[in-house]
Amino acid sequence: MSGLKVQLLLTGDELMSGDIVDSNSAMVAQQFKSLGLVVSRKVTVSDSPIDLANEIAQMSLQADILIINGGLGPTIDDLTSEVLANVCGMPLIENLEALSHLEKWAEKKSISLNKANLKQAQLPSNAKTINNRIGSAVGIQTSLNQCEIYCTPGVPRELRIMLDEEIIPHINEHFKDNLLDHNTYDIARLHTYGVGESLLEELILEAIPHWSADINLGFRAEAPLVEVKLTSTDTSVLPLKETYINTIKTLLGDHIIDCVNDKPKSLSAYLIDALKLNNQTVTTAESCTGGLIASQITAVSGSSQVFEAGFVTYSNKMKTKMIGVLPETLNNHGAVSEQTVIEMAQGSLRVSQANYTLAVSGIAGPTGGSKEKPIGSVWIAWGDANEIKTQYFCIPTHRQQFQQTVTTRCLDLLRRFILQKSTQPFYIKANQVTKK
Amino acid sequence: MSGLKVQLLLTGDELMSGDIVDSNSAMVAQQFKSLGLVVSRKVTVSDSPIDLANEIAQMSLQADILIINGGLGPTIDDLTSEVLANVCGMPLIENLEALSHLEKWAEKKSISLNKANLKQAQLPSNAKTINNRIGSAVGIQTSLNQCEIYCTPGVPRELRIMLDEEIIPHINEHFKDNLLDHNTYDIARLHTYGVGESLLEELILEAIPHWSADINLGFRAEAPLVEVKLTSTDTSVLPLKETYINTIKTLLGDHIIDCVNDKPKSLSAYLIDALKLNNQTVTTAESCTGGLIASQITAVSGSSQVFEAGFVTYSNKMKTKMIGVLPETLNNHGAVSEQTVIEMAQGSLRVSQANYTLAVSGIAGPTGGSKEKPIGSVWIAWGDANEIKTQYFCIPTHRQQFQQTVTTRCLDLLRRFILQKSTQPFYIKANQVTKK
Repeated sequence: MSGLKVQLLLTGDELMSGDIVDSNSAMVAQQFKSLGLVVSRKVTVSDSPIDLANEIAQMSLQADILIINGGLGPTIDDLTSEVLANVCGMPLIENLEALSHLEKWAEKKSISLNKANLKQAQLPSNAKTINNRIGSAVGIQTSLNQCEIYCTPGVPRELRIMLDEEIIPHINEHFKDNLLDHNTYDIARLHTYGVGESLLEELILEAIPHWSADINLGFRAEAPLVEVKLTSTDTSVLPLKETYINTIKTLLGDHIIDCVNDKPKSLSAYLIDALKLNNQTVTTAESCTGGLIASQITAVSGSSQVFEAGFVTYSNKMKTKMIGVLPETLNNHGAVSEQTVIEMAQGSLRVSQANYTLAVSGIAGPTGGSKEKPIGSVWIAWGDANEIKTQYFCIPTHRQQFQQTVTTRCLDLLRRFILQKSTQPFYIKANQVTKK
Repeated sequence: MSGLKVQLLLTGDELMSGDIVDSNSAMVAQQFKSLGLVVSRKVTVSDSPIDLANEIAQMSLQADILIINGGLGPTIDDLTSEVLANVCGMPLIENLEALSHLEKWAEKKSISLNKANLKQAQLPSNAKTINNRIGSAVGIQTSLNQCEIYCTPGVPRELRIMLDEEIIPHINEHFKDNLLDHNTYDIARLHTYGVGESLLEELILEAIPHWSADINLGFRAEAPLVEVKLTSTDTSVLPLKETYINTIKTLLGDHIIDCVNDKPKSLSAYLIDALKLNNQTVTTAESCTGGLIASQITAVSGSSQVFEAGFVTYSNKMKTKMIGVLPETLNNHGAVSEQTVIEMAQGSLRVSQANYTLAVSGIAGPTGGSKEKPIGSVWIAWGDANEIKTQYFCIPTHRQQFQQTVTTRCLDLLRRFILQKSTQPFYIKANQVTKK
């Protein structure tokens, strides 16, 4: 790893008040990782000129690179440029490049610049602009206490493009003597589904009891997947790491969905990959998930190759009318029953002519539960024209979490079925209360 | 506002590396708001004992209340308790309350405690435990440099319950002499849909040119709604504020969805409220949104009263088979056409017997566009058996954003139709390229 110290300063009342969730700092960290750099410290303050000035001054003394995010907009609470000028002891002046950028931006949008917009052209006199390809706010680049400062817009898409196209290349060039060969920083990732984080750690450390101190074992839960991450900086441990990875692969088997050294795809995208292997299609018959399974499938580009129809059969009447569930079945067994989801699965295959199907019926809550069928009860059916499998789960949590969990298990179960994975997933093994 | 200084320290490699997005600090800020307190500064560091120790020491000197979040788990990278003991100059000891909590937790889960779990009972000798009603990690409470320190778990649900049931009541009691009457801190919120943040500001400041310095005007974009927030601390300006609010209400009209002084509901929940007024039902016929509209409706508890069936008709064949769109219509006009969405709307009403319907067909991209029907093109139809309205939009953005935007516009358009709102929403007025 390089010895360059990178810090991040975020500004915005809305960040402090809890009105919005900050996703920008994750983006900054990810981008710096591509340079082999880590963001070591991150401070967030509200839109107070004094607090902002204090943090900029202090952080510029500690860091080699300081990214400031937010406060470049047109409104009265956007203070970054003004405060930066004060801290640097420079006047604010109208920057001609920034002005020309604003004029072009306004022309493209067929609007005229108002006074608030023009404020965005006021930059510290020692600053350079950083191009913003899609938004009105140009970025600001300057240096203070031998720290390179980059001010970036708060809008996530603008930030991402500016980092990618302007700032990361600038840092790569400016600090080229300090940036080590990134390849010495080696990360291997195993993306898993179906085993909890702490059980994963327990299983792995049981299988590899004398874990080397040169290989860092980390876990990251990004619902619904959990990533197992092996990081090392010393190339001499790479063979050992390979052994570890093979042991973990044997241990976790089918629970490993992918090993890409990048963000994994969504579970629905892995299902679509499995379907595309033999040009096959899937349909859905959803009651308690209300269209969520279909929407996660169709969120993936290219899903039209594998998905033609989904049935959201929320009421009993519609289960009968749309996909032919027998009224007797609903009367005798209820909507949340093995027999009903089997008929939903069969009916959806029949109407849609798809190769595979996923059918669910359950009680999402917070009302509608009974002693025999408590809130969180759900029957899932999946399979093809030759074989329909079923499973009961009880997942007592809040409504939207229930719908998400049921959806991800459905996607995983059908993926396993198509790929003919024979082992039972952990979440079925752990599913103690199985009702028939 | 009270003069108590609240700071927040977040710890975790996964927060620094960008592997996860921090939603906990928003939750902490929201909870403190209920006490009339603001979190004034937030620092995030990785799981490094030295960095963590430095920040705890410094922040305890600046703040009256310090919330530390993360690092209480069972794994090797969970360091908070150990570091806190070091900074306080206290030994780590086995805390009997924490141990008993862990034993009960393990019993309930029918598992036995492993060595990693037992680490969670090692607390600084001067610390008290904070109950964690749902998770294994107890919270830790201690004080340093006259700053009250509360260590909390990183799991969002555990944090929320611990703040709500334990920490906020503790602070309320402990600092009761310092906490001012919260009522003097007055916030009014107008939740709007359909007008962008900067246009909202421009319109409001145009309507009320000499805005009082005693009333703070703020905006918060929490997609898809934008909140207009008027904050004041001085009761004498409340009548003026009332005038401002009335002016804004007249100005924005139907674009104001709600004025609750709380988080607004989802757009689908407001649609459901409108349907429930006269016990009416809705159905959906979705192509490019692939079930997202249905899933957002059914994400709301009680939706079964207003929703029986949704049709995800992704292919042309299924548009015909499931809801009777004529093959000639698809051949002559294409799937993305006014005529097709009208027939989708009519067919879905016929099959489902619902009172209202929403139908959409568009090109979500990133492939499938043409010169005449570029990526982002979408036709929407909405209405009832007596009247079907239609609208064309072109929303060229990435796939999932396109699907979300189309979904929220659909939900808003049908809500307006049901409530007989006559004015055109801004996003239709701004929709310059209208094709027929």
